[in-house]
Amino acid sequence: MSEWLKDDERLDYLLAEDLRIIQSPSVFSFSLDAVLLSRFVSVPKRGSVVDLCSGNGVIPLFLSARTKAKIIGVEIQPRLYDMACRSVAYNKLTERIEMKLGDVKAAPDTLGIEKYDAVTCNPPYFLAHELSDKNVSEHYAIARHEIHLTLDEAIYSTSRLLKQGGKAAFVHRPERLLDIVTAMRANRLEPKRMRLIYPKHGKEANTLLIEGIKDGKPGLKILPPLFVYDEHNEYTAEVSAMLYGKE
Amino acid sequence: MSEWLKDDERLDYLLAEDLRIIQSPSVFSFSLDAVLLSRFVSVPKRGSVVDLCSGNGVIPLFLSARTKAKIIGVEIQPRLYDMACRSVAYNKLTERIEMKLGDVKAAPDTLGIEKYDAVTCNPPYFLAHELSDKNVSEHYAIARHEIHLTLDEAIYSTSRLLKQGGKAAFVHRPERLLDIVTAMRANRLEPKRMRLIYPKHGKEANTLLIEGIKDGKPGLKILPPLFVYDEHNEYTAEVSAMLYGKE
Repeated sequence: MSEWLKDDERLDYLLAEDLRIIQSPSVFSFSLDAVLLSRFVSVPKRGSVVDLCSGNGVIPLFLSARTKAKIIGVEIQPRLYDMACRSVAYNKLTERIEMKLGDVKAAPDTLGIEKYDAVTCNPPYFLAHELSDKNVSEHYAIARHEIHLTLDEAIYSTSRLLKQGGKAAFVHRPERLLDIVTAMRANRLEPKRMRLIYPKHGKEANTLLIEGIKDGKPGLKILPPLFVYDEHNEYTAEVSAMLYGKE
Repeated sequence: MSEWLKDDERLDYLLAEDLRIIQSPSVFSFSLDAVLLSRFVSVPKRGSVVDLCSGNGVIPLFLSARTKAKIIGVEIQPRLYDMACRSVAYNKLTERIEMKLGDVKAAPDTLGIEKYDAVTCNPPYFLAHELSDKNVSEHYAIARHEIHLTLDEAIYSTSRLLKQGGKAAFVHRPERLLDIVTAMRANRLEPKRMRLIYPKHGKEANTLLIEGIKDGKPGLKILPPLFVYDEHNEYTAEVSAMLYGKE
């Protein structure tokens, strides 16, 4: 395998999908949130899908198991983009997944306006001014804080990429729910499905999945809650199946 | 008891609070939603609270067990107002609860602007044009459909009644979440706490509790979900405690 890997990278399993992914602890590893989003989004059987803020390509890889659509991943950080390209190649998915190095704000002009059936986006969660630890790795900072991309900009780009009737799915923090839904509606993305993720029973939600339809009719459904850990601090059956596949 | 009751009315128990409430099947009976709202709202220990769309007074009665505040209930339907007044008198709460017959839209001018510490409102859930069954009782229609009061009007009146820093709590259907939060923000009520009610595990949410603070800072918390029924279709322990008191 070593010809595929650089520096401190390792080749991790995406067990549920029988895929492999190149990761590095010093750069960025995919999170459960990305897995949740790739399971949550309504994907077309065919057509084309864009994943914005794609990181090391985990969402395109997971989506490739759910759809025959062509998948484009957009990532601004060269190191993560490079890892994603090698993971796509390792999994022999270059016909299905194309990674693009670039800024999400430029993506509609580069990739085409109103052309896509679905867009996923796991954007930076935190405001730029919340970046208190100046020693944090720049890779982490860019992925987690709104340094190069605000939520409004991510939602604006998403809407421009989508066809009428196309689906836009985001994962974010519940604190930002109002910002998300306000920005979605301002950009013709009507929220239609929402799911809240709770670390365990009795705790507040810590993650939010939301999907809108471009020019859709109003009417939001709130899906059953998802609990990540059970009372023994083990993954619940639903999360375990997402990560490791059905028993 | 019969001197307290008219026609087909009955005197039901609010078991958890050791109170009684006059109800009538032909007019309107309080719903679980009202109980949920009266438990959810952050009430001040003292001060004054208004309950809009008060119906037969169930929320003021429940709130009287949680706070020493003065409670005013506003109801537009004379028959329900009359039942509420008699329930308040029966429970010897006339010093604590005052019912007002009138239109919610006029309530701030009648009761006073920016004067209250908390406002609760269980408004009509359905749009007026959704009233398909023309044979439905007028009492039910007014309570359930936006015939005399729209959601925007309810939220506008709520905000006018509240002091800066006062709490506004609403119960509604999840489909209207975006309308509620948009109207709340437009009326200086920043959403701060939300709780979703699911009929049982694996089902979509069917009820939404939300509380905002007048001129509060942004930042929404999503509380643990509440399930109404367990796998045997019995009330869960939490709902049972709300309705019947702790064992």
